[in-house]
Amino acid sequence: MVTMSAFFTSLVTSLVVFVILVILFSILSRRPSNAYIYYPNRILHGQEPPDLVKKAGVFTWIKEAYSATDAELVAMGGLDAWVYTYFFTTALEILLYSAVFCVVVLIPICVTSHNNAALNNVNNTYVKIDNLAMGNVPNKSAKIWAFLLAAFWVSFVTFYVLWKSYKRVSTFRIQDQTSAKVKPEQFAVLVRDIPKPEVHQTRSEQVDSYFRKLHPGTYEKCLVACDISKAEKLYLEIEKIKLKLEHAQAVYELSKGKGGDGVRPTHKTGFLGLVGAKVDSIDYYNEKLKELTPNLEKERTRALADEQQGAAFAFFSDRRSAAEASQVVHSPDALKWQVYAAPEPREVIWSNLAKPVSQRALRKAIVYVVVFLIVLFFMIPILFISALTTLNNLETLLPFIKAIVKIKVLTAVIQAFLPQLALIIFLALLPSLLMALSKAEGIPSKSHVSRATSGKYFYFIVFNVFLGISIFGTIFASLAGFKQLIQSTGLTVSYVVKLFGQKLPPLASLFITYVALKFFIGYGLSLSRVVALVIYHLKRKYLCKTEKEIQAAWAPGSLSYHTNVPNDMLIMTLALCYAVIAPLILVFAILYFLIGWLIVRNQVLNVYVPEWESGGRMWPHINNRILAALFVSQITMLGFFGVKEFPYTVLLIALPVMTVAFYFVCKLTFYPAFAHLPLAIASEEMKEIPSLASIVEAYTPACLLEGEQFEDAKFEDAQSNMTSRTNSGITSPA
Amino acid sequence: MVTMSAFFTSLVTSLVVFVILVILFSILSRRPSNAYIYYPNRILHGQEPPDLVKKAGVFTWIKEAYSATDAELVAMGGLDAWVYTYFFTTALEILLYSAVFCVVVLIPICVTSHNNAALNNVNNTYVKIDNLAMGNVPNKSAKIWAFLLAAFWVSFVTFYVLWKSYKRVSTFRIQDQTSAKVKPEQFAVLVRDIPKPEVHQTRSEQVDSYFRKLHPGTYEKCLVACDISKAEKLYLEIEKIKLKLEHAQAVYELSKGKGGDGVRPTHKTGFLGLVGAKVDSIDYYNEKLKELTPNLEKERTRALADEQQGAAFAFFSDRRSAAEASQVVHSPDALKWQVYAAPEPREVIWSNLAKPVSQRALRKAIVYVVVFLIVLFFMIPILFISALTTLNNLETLLPFIKAIVKIKVLTAVIQAFLPQLALIIFLALLPSLLMALSKAEGIPSKSHVSRATSGKYFYFIVFNVFLGISIFGTIFASLAGFKQLIQSTGLTVSYVVKLFGQKLPPLASLFITYVALKFFIGYGLSLSRVVALVIYHLKRKYLCKTEKEIQAAWAPGSLSYHTNVPNDMLIMTLALCYAVIAPLILVFAILYFLIGWLIVRNQVLNVYVPEWESGGRMWPHINNRILAALFVSQITMLGFFGVKEFPYTVLLIALPVMTVAFYFVCKLTFYPAFAHLPLAIASEEMKEIPSLASIVEAYTPACLLEGEQFEDAKFEDAQSNMTSRTNSGITSPA
Repeated sequence: MVTMSAFFTSLVTSLVVFVILVILFSILSRRPSNAYIYYPNRILHGQEPPDLVKKAGVFTWIKEAYSATDAELVAMGGLDAWVYTYFFTTALEILLYSAVFCVVVLIPICVTSHNNAALNNVNNTYVKIDNLAMGNVPNKSAKIWAFLLAAFWVSFVTFYVLWKSYKRVSTFRIQDQTSAKVKPEQFAVLVRDIPKPEVHQTRSEQVDSYFRKLHPGTYEKCLVACDISKAEKLYLEIEKIKLKLEHAQAVYELSKGKGGDGVRPTHKTGFLGLVGAKVDSIDYYNEKLKELTPNLEKERTRALADEQQGAAFAFFSDRRSAAEASQVVHSPDALKWQVYAAPEPREVIWSNLAKPVSQRALRKAIVYVVVFLIVLFFMIPILFISALTTLNNLETLLPFIKAIVKIKVLTAVIQAFLPQLALIIFLALLPSLLMALSKAEGIPSKSHVSRATSGKYFYFIVFNVFLGISIFGTIFASLAGFKQLIQSTGLTVSYVVKLFGQKLPPLASLFITYVALKFFIGYGLSLSRVVALVIYHLKRKYLCKTEKEIQAAWAPGSLSYHTNVPNDMLIMTLALCYAVIAPLILVFAILYFLIGWLIVRNQVLNVYVPEWESGGRMWPHINNRILAALFVSQITMLGFFGVKEFPYTVLLIALPVMTVAFYFVCKLTFYPAFAHLPLAIASEEMKEIPSLASIVEAYTPACLLEGEQFEDAKFEDAQSNMTSRTNSGITSPA
Repeated sequence: MVTMSAFFTSLVTSLVVFVILVILFSILSRRPSNAYIYYPNRILHGQEPPDLVKKAGVFTWIKEAYSATDAELVAMGGLDAWVYTYFFTTALEILLYSAVFCVVVLIPICVTSHNNAALNNVNNTYVKIDNLAMGNVPNKSAKIWAFLLAAFWVSFVTFYVLWKSYKRVSTFRIQDQTSAKVKPEQFAVLVRDIPKPEVHQTRSEQVDSYFRKLHPGTYEKCLVACDISKAEKLYLEIEKIKLKLEHAQAVYELSKGKGGDGVRPTHKTGFLGLVGAKVDSIDYYNEKLKELTPNLEKERTRALADEQQGAAFAFFSDRRSAAEASQVVHSPDALKWQVYAAPEPREVIWSNLAKPVSQRALRKAIVYVVVFLIVLFFMIPILFISALTTLNNLETLLPFIKAIVKIKVLTAVIQAFLPQLALIIFLALLPSLLMALSKAEGIPSKSHVSRATSGKYFYFIVFNVFLGISIFGTIFASLAGFKQLIQSTGLTVSYVVKLFGQKLPPLASLFITYVALKFFIGYGLSLSRVVALVIYHLKRKYLCKTEKEIQAAWAPGSLSYHTNVPNDMLIMTLALCYAVIAPLILVFAILYFLIGWLIVRNQVLNVYVPEWESGGRMWPHINNRILAALFVSQITMLGFFGVKEFPYTVLLIALPVMTVAFYFVCKLTFYPAFAHLPLAIASEEMKEIPSLASIVEAYTPACLLEGEQFEDAKFEDAQSNMTSRTNSGITSPA
């Protein structure tokens, strides 16, 4: 598919870009003014920029990333980030063990065979790099036994490493759950689908009476979900105006500093500050604040009283009772009073809490159908858009384009790049689209949305990049192939498996360049953070006036697991699929995960700041996706060994069966402790028992919590009345 | 397939047999001496045989069965039996509503069409009864719209009735769970996979310390499972000898009654009482008892002390705590300390309790594979046996057969019937085989084994009777068809669906006679109980001497759900599959379920005595099987409408999708309350709280419980030491 020179050109280009970016990083990261870009997480943990920059260098970051302990990683990035770094460790181990056999034994076998040369007489499409792959071994050769053995080796190695890793992560999660650190979510449960209250009851009375009966002595109080959308909107508006006010004041102070009385900043109130009446900014924003603050108070009171919904957080006096309550069927009608483990306060998605179960089921079904269609037919809207954006069409839609069309060169360029542009824009927007779809399912926590998005994106990426390029590219390329697919009499399972076997091996070198491009360029960019750096310096120089604005300019955000995990998983899928067929890919995949391992650890330690913490619940997801990748690879090999007319191919059927069995064993053994807090852990003594007030406060949304004039009495409407304290050390809130 | 005369001959013969059996029943059931056969359940509930016989008659039993209330049925046969009768109600409702459209609208449409007559010129295989089926409507006719509508009607009717029924059963189950009747299982949980205790600990100490920590204040004590196999064997032997002793004493008394000193009964101690020394029976059995009783004591003590296993029942002070504990993940290693809701004491399978989870998983996998092979290839061992039992083979194995072979007529008969005999024996043994396989999975309760067997038998019966006769009969009949199947290029999903469509309709009349045969003969036999009656009278006259022996002779046993449910379900499957294609079957299926409804209610009230009670947990199973039948019928219709070249067939694809969706909705809504005791129910106040001693006693196996000399102190070894009583009304056992 790729010639030898193209293959090396691609590799070398990627490598050169990577080296340049690494050099850039080692230069830039030494400058103190850049510390906010390269060490934001450290700075937020209280370290001083000058100290951080001193030690920076090409090898120091590698040494630091390499020698960081698990405890350090968890301390800096939380358990979720540690789990993500551990995914790299696991992938690396699997690939290294696989390479021991595949690279050392299989490549020499391939090189000493001459199938490609023999076939070359007939068909002149192979390149020398293909001699390192299984395609070079003649059909029915006894040498194929070695490849069969390798297939088993790779599968067993994967099982072994995954088992060890799941156990390790599981132990680590349990340590974290038992730890002395106070976790409000361990004292709360999320109650959804609360039925309509009786006429004389408020929601909180209803929840109180129900839970007090079912959990006598341990139930404390509840916090009913309200429709806070309006209050939140007002709250955010006020926060924005406060920032603008600060900015205006800073501008005024600066102008004073230059001598004289200073110039009071002004702006226009209309669209984008371009039109409308000119006003004094400080006065205007002060006025606005005075106007909006009482509105927010009013809205708060109204929402808490009138907008109570059918969901609530219930708080318990000890973690044991909360853990127990979260796992138990409460109502005989199982769709009512559904009780779940509470998500961490930071990751609650308030707008989803009160969505009734029927709506959630319907939304989920619709989202699944939409995602299925996106995965399968994502090219169609792109083609439609590019058809729509041909110049002829644009001319009729936007008449002013006519002038441009007259310039011939421009026309050619636009016509060539418009479809690609549409594709690039679509692919860039896809994660956000999938995220929005996952959120629309009615999932109550951000970490869960992230996992759901990750799953959807994984299917999209594996189906379209991997399967898409290899198989469907071939089938749909010609109309004849498409017709054959439609006349489904020819489309049997064995036919599809055979197709896998035929179409995949020639693509190995293509995918090797893909992996190399991905890690050299991708990692180079994410290590050097050049884009973030440039934006930060521009913003700081021209826009930011206040401390808060500067902080917002360098805020690194959190690791976006929902795009990272599927992308890494694609490399894993490629590596596993080609590990036996074209073992050379293992070398590049190992490089990918090795450099990735260093860079991700560096970023967890220095850069990204976690937004929420799910306690490593991404791991079961990662484990299952690696198994899915293994499963695909086993099916692929079944096809390829069949094409090689090797009579013992039938032995390979055992592998996918074992993979499925292993999946279930993992699920039964480890998953329950991820889905629920085991009672044995919840029953452990705690050093410090948090006050109920602090837990309730953690769960109250910001827009309902702030405001000094806010009366506590009103607030008590949405919370329940306190039960008389029983035996815990929790004290009532004021 | 069947000619008109053969069809009617079959129907009439079945009807005649049925009428004869019903007349027999109405005569026989009036005789007081037969009351023990026709009213055993009533007698066990304390009614007197003469009162029962007085009211017997042809119509009285119908009136009684018809007018029995749900409460009566539950009182006489338990909730499980009521659920089984309610299955008939549900099936009847579904079929009646379906018939409203299918019989009334579709049959006239079929009769007024002439497709069969038109085709008859070419192919002379149809019979007049087929004119009542969809086959008589010409291809592509607009009349097919009515059939399409009917397909939707049947599906919606099924959804509606199933939903209503599930709700009804659910409510009824919850009423039963809340009821004042003491249920020991509500105060206990089953703990399995207890890890190895520490060296100094006994099992009961281990369970005590673990549960007392995790359930402080509510955990009471435990009963560790022991290996009681030896003790049970001894216990059963002693019970048998006691019966024999009583028998011998009764014989002695009888001979005394005839005048003189009487003759002391004697018997030989060897094989079958035919050889060996002649002994005085009474002395001999007395001697044996004296010898065995201390052995049992010794074995009891030993088992309780040394044979404690890794499973236990843990008892709680209130049902709420037990319900909560049974649903919660206890250990971080989810495979250890697995806690389940306790089964009813009567249905505990002690030998399965301590099977470790790894073994259970392995056993389950093996059993599934074995069942899969039985379902798929059940004909092969039969053919093998019949080949082995051809006379030529038998001659070499059993030389004495040679004499028989010489008689020509006998040879012919034997050779003709041996294969059928093998088949009949296999089919008769199959339920027991499946039962044994289900038990071998390691399931801890009899009701669960019964459900598991029912599922396996359902697949066997649907696959072999229904699909086997219709499709595979056609494919495998000729070697060509088989070859086509092997060369799988021709075997696509659409091909199989088409095959369904082509092969099913001509078989409708065959299945109608099958249904008729089944209900006329089967119900006739089970109503008249002639076999049981004859055996009872023979035994009473010639064998039974003591009261206990007579009771054993008329003991009716319990309803065998594991064979009944799949058999009825087969009729349901047939009825749903043909409801649209050949609506006449509905008439017979309605008759089947109507008469069945009466007879089953009669039997629940009068005959069968429940062995255990699972609280109606058969219902989810029944619901899902009916949905499976509906699913098969929808796929069938898809094929048949396709064969009719009806362009709107594509609309039918919505139906199987809806069925799957409905399955999930049912599962989410109702199943949790069947799988677990909802907390809201467990928290209801109880009128009477049972003593802990009585609960523990209920769970102690008979062979460990009886024996007056048995020291309580020893018994305490396997039970745990009592915790200090907390706040419940339960008193310690002595």
